[in-house]
Amino acid sequence: MRMEELTAEEFQERVDQNILVIVPIGATEAHGIHLPLGTDTFQPQMVADCLAKRIGALVAPALPYGNHSSTRNMPGTVNLQFDTLRALMRDILFSLADHGVKRILLLSGHAGSAHMIALREAAKELVTHRPVKVMLLTDYDLAREYASRCEVDPHDGHGGAIETARMMAIRPDCVRARMVKGEFVDPGYLVLPDPERCFPQGMAGDPRMANAEMGEKMNQYVVDRLAEIIEKEMRSEDES
Amino acid sequence: MRMEELTAEEFQERVDQNILVIVPIGATEAHGIHLPLGTDTFQPQMVADCLAKRIGALVAPALPYGNHSSTRNMPGTVNLQFDTLRALMRDILFSLADHGVKRILLLSGHAGSAHMIALREAAKELVTHRPVKVMLLTDYDLAREYASRCEVDPHDGHGGAIETARMMAIRPDCVRARMVKGEFVDPGYLVLPDPERCFPQGMAGDPRMANAEMGEKMNQYVVDRLAEIIEKEMRSEDES
Amino acid sequence: MRMEELTAEEFQERVDQNILVIVPIGATEAHGIHLPLGTDTFQPQMVADCLAKRIGALVAPALPYGNHSSTRNMPGTVNLQFDTLRALMRDILFSLADHGVKRILLLSGHAGSAHMIALREAAKELVTHRPVKVMLLTDYDLAREYASRCEVDPHDGHGGAIETARMMAIRPDCVRARMVKGEFVDPGYLVLPDPERCFPQGMAGDPRMANAEMGEKMNQYVVDRLAEIIEKEMRSEDES
Amino acid sequence: MRMEELTAEEFQERVDQNILVIVPIGATEAHGIHLPLGTDTFQPQMVADCLAKRIGALVAPALPYGNHSSTRNMPGTVNLQFDTLRALMRDILFSLADHGVKRILLLSGHAGSAHMIALREAAKELVTHRPVKVMLLTDYDLAREYASRCEVDPHDGHGGAIETARMMAIRPDCVRARMVKGEFVDPGYLVLPDPERCFPQGMAGDPRMANAEMGEKMNQYVVDRLAEIIEKEMRSEDES
Amino acid sequence: MRMEELTAEEFQERVDQNILVIVPIGATEAHGIHLPLGTDTFQPQMVADCLAKRIGALVAPALPYGNHSSTRNMPGTVNLQFDTLRALMRDILFSLADHGVKRILLLSGHAGSAHMIALREAAKELVTHRPVKVMLLTDYDLAREYASRCEVDPHDGHGGAIETARMMAIRPDCVRARMVKGEFVDPGYLVLPDPERCFPQGMAGDPRMANAEMGEKMNQYVVDRLAEIIEKEMRSEDES
Amino acid sequence: MRMEELTAEEFQERVDQNILVIVPIGATEAHGIHLPLGTDTFQPQMVADCLAKRIGALVAPALPYGNHSSTRNMPGTVNLQFDTLRALMRDILFSLADHGVKRILLLSGHAGSAHMIALREAAKELVTHRPVKVMLLTDYDLAREYASRCEVDPHDGHGGAIETARMMAIRPDCVRARMVKGEFVDPGYLVLPDPERCFPQGMAGDPRMANAEMGEKMNQYVVDRLAEIIEKEMRSEDES
Repeated sequence: MRMEELTAEEFQERVDQNILVIVPIGATEAHGIHLPLGTDTFQPQMVADCLAKRIGALVAPALPYGNHSSTRNMPGTVNLQFDTLRALMRDILFSLADHGVKRILLLSGHAGSAHMIALREAAKELVTHRPVKVMLLTDYDLAREYASRCEVDPHDGHGGAIETARMMAIRPDCVRARMVKGEFVDPGYLVLPDPERCFPQGMAGDPRMANAEMGEKMNQYVVDRLAEIIEKEMRSEDES
Repeated sequence: MRMEELTAEEFQERVDQNILVIVPIGATEAHGIHLPLGTDTFQPQMVADCLAKRIGALVAPALPYGNHSSTRNMPGTVNLQFDTLRALMRDILFSLADHGVKRILLLSGHAGSAHMIALREAAKELVTHRPVKVMLLTDYDLAREYASRCEVDPHDGHGGAIETARMMAIRPDCVRARMVKGEFVDPGYLVLPDPERCFPQGMAGDPRMANAEMGEKMNQYVVDRLAEIIEKEMRSEDES
Repeated sequence: MRMEELTAEEFQERVDQNILVIVPIGATEAHGIHLPLGTDTFQPQMVADCLAKRIGALVAPALPYGNHSSTRNMPGTVNLQFDTLRALMRDILFSLADHGVKRILLLSGHAGSAHMIALREAAKELVTHRPVKVMLLTDYDLAREYASRCEVDPHDGHGGAIETARMMAIRPDCVRARMVKGEFVDPGYLVLPDPERCFPQGMAGDPRMANAEMGEKMNQYVVDRLAEIIEKEMRSEDES
Repeated sequence: MRMEELTAEEFQERVDQNILVIVPIGATEAHGIHLPLGTDTFQPQMVADCLAKRIGALVAPALPYGNHSSTRNMPGTVNLQFDTLRALMRDILFSLADHGVKRILLLSGHAGSAHMIALREAAKELVTHRPVKVMLLTDYDLAREYASRCEVDPHDGHGGAIETARMMAIRPDCVRARMVKGEFVDPGYLVLPDPERCFPQGMAGDPRMANAEMGEKMNQYVVDRLAEIIEKEMRSEDES
Repeated sequence: MRMEELTAEEFQERVDQNILVIVPIGATEAHGIHLPLGTDTFQPQMVADCLAKRIGALVAPALPYGNHSSTRNMPGTVNLQFDTLRALMRDILFSLADHGVKRILLLSGHAGSAHMIALREAAKELVTHRPVKVMLLTDYDLAREYASRCEVDPHDGHGGAIETARMMAIRPDCVRARMVKGEFVDPGYLVLPDPERCFPQGMAGDPRMANAEMGEKMNQYVVDRLAEIIEKEMRSEDES
Repeated sequence: MRMEELTAEEFQERVDQNILVIVPIGATEAHGIHLPLGTDTFQPQMVADCLAKRIGALVAPALPYGNHSSTRNMPGTVNLQFDTLRALMRDILFSLADHGVKRILLLSGHAGSAHMIALREAAKELVTHRPVKVMLLTDYDLAREYASRCEVDPHDGHGGAIETARMMAIRPDCVRARMVKGEFVDPGYLVLPDPERCFPQGMAGDPRMANAEMGEKMNQYVVDRLAEIIEKEMRSEDES
């Protein structure tokens, strides 16, 4: 159930029943020569929609822009400043809380550390000032959790086999056939002005290992795990 | 053509050909008892997609949140602070410009005056610092332009016949059958803490006058007019 | 009665009697070859003084600087950033409210849309946090209201016949005899880095149509209308 | 010569001749039971006008609000935050500099230390980024300089004999006959939430010692000294 | 060699010889019942001093405050806001760069993720605008690297055996004899207003396993590894 | 007693007994050819330690960076922006207050006016929002108080005989033998982009007049006076 398709009243009714609101947080970011700029939006959007159906949650409109570090200078990456992303998240969270929402899941497709901290800082501010439960995670971490149990290269990363497989299952029309193996050049502890040089192919891992079936399983795993996690960490009965 | 479906390279190729980038700016806002919260997102998204097809432009991911004044306290309205929206727009614009985009159309579904000024301030900052042409408008104004020539009540406004007709043409599944006439109670020059009292029904105008055919014509008109305006104000040949 | 001429005690006594405080908001802005830079300060100052006498209000010191868009690059325009003007207004409003002022009229000479939004945002913040009634308007709109009923060209604008006539009545010594007709070149929907090119003569309308008598009537109308509006919207009896 | 009375062109001509621009910085601040809230505006305004006549300078519109510490909770004090005042000064200075002004005198009536630092920080930013000469001082310090040579109590301060005498010469109609001696209760090194308790009478010194003739001499001295200082520190010939 | 012990000239001479400047970043943070609040300052300070001696670097004054998340509500934790820490780091970095410093090592004792991102954002800003090489790391990660190769519990964490052993070697007088095992209660993906409940004993791991000899070896390892890393990543010959 | 050497519990115990917390505020600043960059840190650190011993106070970790004006362009000066220093002080003060600290002494080595105002603004914010007593002063002013009674040149200033004598007593190893007399070139009222030209020798006064014994007495005087002042202004019995 998408929030944007509900009227104000219909939204309020569900909020009054203590519905969980999922906010998918996407990105517009270079993902190598074979994956589309919206990769990090398509993934959490799909997960949020499946999860909402499964557990009866509400999906807020997905944010399609995030904060990027390594890929910030690559073509097509739209980069929100740290402060902008934090303010954006804060405003959305406080608006939802002011309407009475008590349970929120922030589900980010992009997993960059500054990006996640910006979201976390906003969430921390909310829970400090309002009696709301907030969970924050990236579906990418759950997909990796699955991948670590099977054949995927442990060095697989940005735009690699995991993301490629998942996109083959979600939006096969957006995955290009031409693929290359992406090397990650470790910058060590240097803070770089040109971090794109760590990704000579623009991504890391071997997308040629990916296939739609693998992606299907990953996506399924992510939804299943999230349903479990929510059941455990956010049962509405916990609310008092 | 949606930017999120292109790879980094494909995006860059189009930018190198001086493509116009359209950024649809939506909102999540209460629109009476019959229209969905995403009304102001669905409209510019549809216009942008049609226009892009018509004139060969690129559509950036739509922002689904804006700044609201009169409806800020109504259920479901997600309100970005003025500064947040301005920063968000600024970051997106500068990112696009840094990738070489030279022509940008900001197309907002919501027409609130503070909302528009926030977008304009960001655009002003861009054009002051980068050699980029930016157009900013709301498709709502163009739809009104059309409406003023036909049967629509001149007092029709937020969530009224114009928006209802357009939504009937775009997302009929999201328009509820139950409709009422919405009265606008003029606050005069007072700045109100509770401006929702100016909209006792949550919207202004008579949506019962609307039908899908009328909406179709309006949407068509908006796309046609925009194509004309762009042709006139943003011909790529103007660039030097 | 000017606030700057009262002692602290005398001010407090009037505040305790629930006096209306008028804050004239001026500007220092290019107004063509015939009008002085202080045009937008002289007008609301004169209106505020007359109105205060008429209805027994208190006039706070006039702000002589504002936020400008179209004229920001013209000689003599002093431009406060949007954020500066908003902060300035906010500080003044909160100071007045903290002294117990319950009724405030913000009367701006300049009518630029970003300028007005900056003032409005500050006022919105005040009324959200303090039990104060605030009205915000520009006397220019009321003068236009009058002009629309008589002979003045509907395209008359910045530095045109309306402002010239009013200045002839207020400060004839500051109106130069040399006048030209000012053309307004519509920028359409473009956001310009050099908006002064929309005003080749620096103003819009035909000041040669103006005379002091016309200005006298306009000023009188503005004061009369404001007295009415205040009576209607801000009666102190409304306070509870 | 007041800037607000000039047209844009007339202003530019004078700037092209390298005229000195004086910006009087006033305040709206409680000054005991006998002096008006605008005391700190009237004084630098008068000095600026005399000085401008004497040396051929231009007087920008006076800022009527400042930053206050000790009197911030007293009736009638309008207090700009430190950041607001700094931003305000910065915007004015950069606007003047962008029009080509090369010599600026900031003349503050209020002499509070945070107030002066806010102005100084803005001026420092200007001179770091633009080739402009800026002088910053308070005419109060010059008046004290004079007073120290004659009969005035060395402990005379805010609202005391010096300010009273000067106001008697400038705006006798605004000086009330009822006067008391004001004691200053030293807070030592404590930072107080209620600093008004250091001024039980709202001012410091004995205004009953003041008379208009003394004020006349002080004002004359301030203008004379300023003319000398400017001649020495800001000769336009220094400019290269 | 400590920067605070050098004169301005002596500092400049070393900078002219392209010396590496190490900035130790400490914290004032609760570290269980046995470790002092300055634990995260003592560690990088000691490492920086040893390293400086070894490779001929300069040690800037240690920052004794940082940004904290999990321990922010525990007694004694002094918490800088994210923005404060970032601004502080930015100012220090730009000051050093403006004096000609070309190689900087930021060495943080505290390893919190938001803390590290704040430092990284500041460093990113520097390297984007100035030709300076910056390395950022926490000596805690290097100590863990060593610990992972020997007997230390992989779940050892904040205030655990690693930090205790190191402090026994650095400041044995500040390590209390009474120690308990610290349990870490995983919050899952929840963002908590009271994260201290994840550390019922205020720390994680078993400090009773620690001894000074182990700490000595860890500290030695950290210095050795850092010397290697710097040799590899920051050779001054790389500069061009 | 240094706060960094206490555990969280030990800190809390002392706070519960209403202990005074002294925060030494240092600087890293050019001090002529004979004094070290840390001069303004060594002095308040030494005073704080002695005072703490004498009256049973707690010394928080010293801030080693401040805000500088005249020396900001000299080698080795690390300059925090006004806003950074204010935010830093604010965060430290609010953290201490949130742990229950009720009495705080801010003791700054550097005495620059903007620096002191930044600290004062932070302290003002604290006392406005929390029931805490805060004293703010610079030990330099107390040392001058002593010097004014004996042989020291009244024009002695930054890096002069007073500071040199005190450093000879505190850290003789950091005082260089080569000394020159420092002239101060008065800038009058000009706000300078290059204020270092007012200190051709980088300092003001004659350090050759200084000796360790004189410094010993000054330091002793400062500690004695501070003990008196605290006894008078901050007796814990005053607390209610």
